[in-house]
Amino acid sequence: MTARQRIVLVTGSAGIVGGVLADRLADRYVLRGFDRRASPLPGPIGDLADPAALGAACRGVEAIVHLAGDPRVDAPWATILQENIVGTAALFEAARREGVDRVVFASSNHVVGQLEVEGAPAIHGGAAGRIIGADEPFRADSLYGVSKAFGETLGRYYSDRHGMRVVCLRIGSVVRDDDPWLEAQRLGGDPMVNYRRLRATWLSHRDCAELVVAALEADVRFAVVYGLSANRRRLWDLEPAGRLLGFRPLDAAPDQPP
Amino acid sequence: MTARQRIVLVTGSAGIVGGVLADRLADRYVLRGFDRRASPLPGPIGDLADPAALGAACRGVEAIVHLAGDPRVDAPWATILQENIVGTAALFEAARREGVDRVVFASSNHVVGQLEVEGAPAIHGGAAGRIIGADEPFRADSLYGVSKAFGETLGRYYSDRHGMRVVCLRIGSVVRDDDPWLEAQRLGGDPMVNYRRLRATWLSHRDCAELVVAALEADVRFAVVYGLSANRRRLWDLEPAGRLLGFRPLDAAPDQPP
Repeated sequence: MTARQRIVLVTGSAGIVGGVLADRLADRYVLRGFDRRASPLPGPIGDLADPAALGAACRGVEAIVHLAGDPRVDAPWATILQENIVGTAALFEAARREGVDRVVFASSNHVVGQLEVEGAPAIHGGAAGRIIGADEPFRADSLYGVSKAFGETLGRYYSDRHGMRVVCLRIGSVVRDDDPWLEAQRLGGDPMVNYRRLRATWLSHRDCAELVVAALEADVRFAVVYGLSANRRRLWDLEPAGRLLGFRPLDAAPDQPP
Repeated sequence: MTARQRIVLVTGSAGIVGGVLADRLADRYVLRGFDRRASPLPGPIGDLADPAALGAACRGVEAIVHLAGDPRVDAPWATILQENIVGTAALFEAARREGVDRVVFASSNHVVGQLEVEGAPAIHGGAAGRIIGADEPFRADSLYGVSKAFGETLGRYYSDRHGMRVVCLRIGSVVRDDDPWLEAQRLGGDPMVNYRRLRATWLSHRDCAELVVAALEADVRFAVVYGLSANRRRLWDLEPAGRLLGFRPLDAAPDQPP
């Protein structure tokens, strides 16, 4: 914790991750929200498509956590285009214009989701012995995944060409009530099938908040890492987040539901 | 050459590569053009932003060579978004709807252009000893480069999820009059500096046409390759185009201008 708290803008602050950050990081940073809906963080209601509102939201902040976007893996192209592609481009450009030094971009495992599609269901049982690294070429399983790959590529460009620090977090499963078994029962279909994936992909609220702190504090120009708890049967590689950001998860999903 | 000629749609057919294909492949395929300007290939004047015109252009064709887009490396986001991102997404979706089996996508070395920026000028002298492979992670030097990375990622998605055959060609320097030294003098600035890059990146008209034939005929689901002539001081790896498409260039840029 620094003496003077940094001002951090959180876009998409009305979502579940925004709520986790509001709950857990309000004493570490001066957090501002930016969302089309009312959010738990102070800040204007606004849309990424409104350049004046976005510019004003970025003014004077030292870092941005960009969570806004359509989070649905099966979202149609129209909203993926507007919210994830046009919106993310507007965010990076506004950050550059306002001289914001650092952007933490909420990416997704769906940039290589096809690897999981081709490995399922064995890949969720730990039987396949496969842990997916952060340096695999993009294999999006959806237009959503394509849009997140676009965001990572754009972030690299802003880092390389405009000197911005950019950290792309492929955020695991952050669930309501912080309980993967409750979530597995809520999702519909076979809860055990759901749980086998969630025990591989879970990111606890506490680990999620510390992952964002690590991304805000790390001395890196650009990084792409997976963010998940220390789940024993994990699907994705935790090593890059440890090496590049110093992230050490404290939680882990149990192998079996309670 | 097959007994029955395949019907191939060429988007952006009014551009320089479209002209090369019109000149050299009219006896190999039934070529149709699609451009906002009059082009040397028969076909409608039309825009990728017009779904009805695009759908009609894709109807009944067996493959598409997608050259359309803003070709300027320094193009602003507004046209990159509309012509390269929205336009390419419209093209792939129209191809899927019309059951087109294969798309050849005109990509660009600018998807990793930052590697060249960081290596210049030594990288153009052959002194750096660096040949850039086709499997480097994206390091776009421009929004143009970001848009071509988007196109490659989208192509992979259509290949993986919709069973389309997609070949991404990172097309080298195809120049007017097919003469890299004339082009070096035309570009402005120091012709020798221009030539040092062009002798590394040149793709002759003859090799360009055969590269497109190779991409149209190869038995691959997805490939990303560099297309350039057999320039001795080449900047990019020719091996993937040979291995995946069977492409063997016949020309080579002289080490020195005449």
